Amino acid sequence: MRTITLGLLGLGTVGSGVVKLLQAQQAKLEQTAQVHFHLKRVAVAHLAKHRNDPLPSGTTLTDNIDDVLNDQDIQVVIETMGTVNLARDVIKKAIYRGKSVITANKDLLATDGPQLAELARFRHVDFMYEASVAGGIPILRVLSNSLVTDQINQITGIINGTANYILTAMSSAGLSYQDALAEAQEKGYAEPDPTNDVKGIDTANKLSILSQFSFGRALDPHQLTVTGIDQVCKQQLAAASQLGYAVKLLAIARRKGDCIFTFVGPALLPQTAQLAQIAGVQNAIEVNSNALGTTVYTGPGAGAEPTANSILSDLVAVADHIMNFDCGKEFNGYHNHLTTNSINDLPQAYLAVAKQAPPVDLAWQKTSTNNDRWAGITPTLSTTEAAALQKQCDYPLLPIANSWSL
Amino acid sequence: MRTITLGLLGLGTVGSGVVKLLQAQQAKLEQTAQVHFHLKRVAVAHLAKHRNDPLPSGTTLTDNIDDVLNDQDIQVVIETMGTVNLARDVIKKAIYRGKSVITANKDLLATDGPQLAELARFRHVDFMYEASVAGGIPILRVLSNSLVTDQINQITGIINGTANYILTAMSSAGLSYQDALAEAQEKGYAEPDPTNDVKGIDTANKLSILSQFSFGRALDPHQLTVTGIDQVCKQQLAAASQLGYAVKLLAIARRKGDCIFTFVGPALLPQTAQLAQIAGVQNAIEVNSNALGTTVYTGPGAGAEPTANSILSDLVAVADHIMNFDCGKEFNGYHNHLTTNSINDLPQAYLAVAKQAPPVDLAWQKTSTNNDRWAGITPTLSTTEAAALQKQCDYPLLPIANSWSL
Repeated sequence: MRTITLGLLGLGTVGSGVVKLLQAQQAKLEQTAQVHFHLKRVAVAHLAKHRNDPLPSGTTLTDNIDDVLNDQDIQVVIETMGTVNLARDVIKKAIYRGKSVITANKDLLATDGPQLAELARFRHVDFMYEASVAGGIPILRVLSNSLVTDQINQITGIINGTANYILTAMSSAGLSYQDALAEAQEKGYAEPDPTNDVKGIDTANKLSILSQFSFGRALDPHQLTVTGIDQVCKQQLAAASQLGYAVKLLAIARRKGDCIFTFVGPALLPQTAQLAQIAGVQNAIEVNSNALGTTVYTGPGAGAEPTANSILSDLVAVADHIMNFDCGKEFNGYHNHLTTNSINDLPQAYLAVAKQAPPVDLAWQKTSTNNDRWAGITPTLSTTEAAALQKQCDYPLLPIANSWSL
Repeated sequence: MRTITLGLLGLGTVGSGVVKLLQAQQAKLEQTAQVHFHLKRVAVAHLAKHRNDPLPSGTTLTDNIDDVLNDQDIQVVIETMGTVNLARDVIKKAIYRGKSVITANKDLLATDGPQLAELARFRHVDFMYEASVAGGIPILRVLSNSLVTDQINQITGIINGTANYILTAMSSAGLSYQDALAEAQEKGYAEPDPTNDVKGIDTANKLSILSQFSFGRALDPHQLTVTGIDQVCKQQLAAASQLGYAVKLLAIARRKGDCIFTFVGPALLPQTAQLAQIAGVQNAIEVNSNALGTTVYTGPGAGAEPTANSILSDLVAVADHIMNFDCGKEFNGYHNHLTTNSINDLPQAYLAVAKQAPPVDLAWQKTSTNNDRWAGITPTLSTTEAAALQKQCDYPLLPIANSWSL
């Protein structure tokens, strides 16, 4: 049986998960992929740090990344360090030295992904990153293998478990945003600094990668209009629920002609929608395409083991390419020249919440009142009309997903 | 660009879908797979039959299957004829002549799949059948690519759209089984002879294939205990709903140690379960595995275009193997020696429905009464206890999914 030699960068939650899963699944991998994986070197920041799980025999620990990069036996480097700048340098070096690279580093991928993929193609090595979007859900491989024969019209995702946990807790337990965030932090679902998750930055980064695989066009996350969930309050959630909706932090990219329309922010979905059922830290991605219609993929969006599984599925694909002398094909080989636009600039319907019914003449689609607040679903409004209405509402307007007219 | 030459057997709903999708997606396929597909010959039963869609120029129609099988240019044969005996012969011949084969023929696969796969391996050609389970949902490729690095514990599927349509109509519109079946037939969702679908035979065939990919062990559909939905009545559905459950035709395979426990039949799921939300002709598969926990895949279970998309995703994989001189690897390379057992023989809880509360001393978990019927959820019962209770109930007991104790 062929042996493929690996190097691992980082031995935190994800890195340790990779080591464990590689050991646990060795027999199945040898049978199905016809390959034995030898983890030769693991680079860590602190050699002396106590580690619970012993490394496999034959694996050397080092605190010098170059020990991994300079080892000519190592054919595949798995990067789980998580920083952006260091990771970029190290991945480039690994690619230059003819090593295939697997990473879950979504922040790096959102900014440098296309360039690194191009570099890998030129150097005839693989560059894969299934774990970068929706953790354990094999969405990128589904898009690049199974949906490559279809034309995708829209992709809609709940792809930030932290934000979904917070919104679920606010909605089901009636918590305030601050209390729900504190609860998420306590349970380890939110970072001490939750900015990336609650401000929608992480969601925008992942949408960029999804758009690349769906439409052949990566998005520049810095150019997206992004709204976080930190301004959502429980009054809005209660009103939405009373009117038959759920509020979710959605990532949407829709192709129309030669343009991709994007949205990242909290929006309303009918309670009966499949994505509305996605609770807690779960993730889900809904794909609307010509041949398949609607398919939905749900699963864990984070965690050591789901992320490690996605990394190992990349590894099996890389191993197949190595054995076939076929490395260097892009993970996503679909490229299109498309412009981008924001869904926020389109006419759409909104949830309006105020202390009292605003004195405007609107054909409200539905309204509800409670002891201390009024809420209504607007008809389709232009951005000017929405801005005028906003002034009369005590809470930010929330758009109704898919109500926009193109 | 490399050209790969194809032969198509059958030009019914699915065959026509393949021709259309191949034409529609040609540019994307050429860009991403770096291959041009030339459909050289299509074999049909009746040459003179009127066809709406013209074949691509360069494609010849024939009523002699041997014209396809004997054409040495043809590297891949797509079988969409749908009969079992003829298809078996033709697929064997194609494999013997060194052609890779793609089929959606689940009835054939359930009985002859492992043998045909073995034959293809020996002849160094590919044999793929993504479309055979759950139509457009890319579940087999997900299991064989993305979950090959994980250990699957249980797979639960709603994989017959006809049965799910009927149960949904009975439950939501209060129709009788006969009326719901008639409605499904009228809409083209059920065959004039619905036996395979409503008796659970189709579901059992697909479970066999799912078990092969999940556990490395195909099931013999003839040895499975299979219950259909044709004995389910609206009183049971109404009672289930009142008690917080939905009734679904489920296919379950669960591995415990060296045994696979299987179930095919109507069973109750809590209304909050993700699979309980699957309505109409939609399909869904829930996978429970060590690393990922629960992932769910939902989409269209049938139809020309979804099926054609799955066939074309097979074709892209076959093309990659042809270009790498790497054909002959099994679609599912995972094999295990496991015994099988029926979940029906395990202690489990049931929904009991009768005209009046049965005079037995049971710790009912929940009960409900209506004008003219009584219903209750039992505690875990042995098969003997269940048989005794059955005698006192006017309707068949329905098991509660996942209530069985192993």
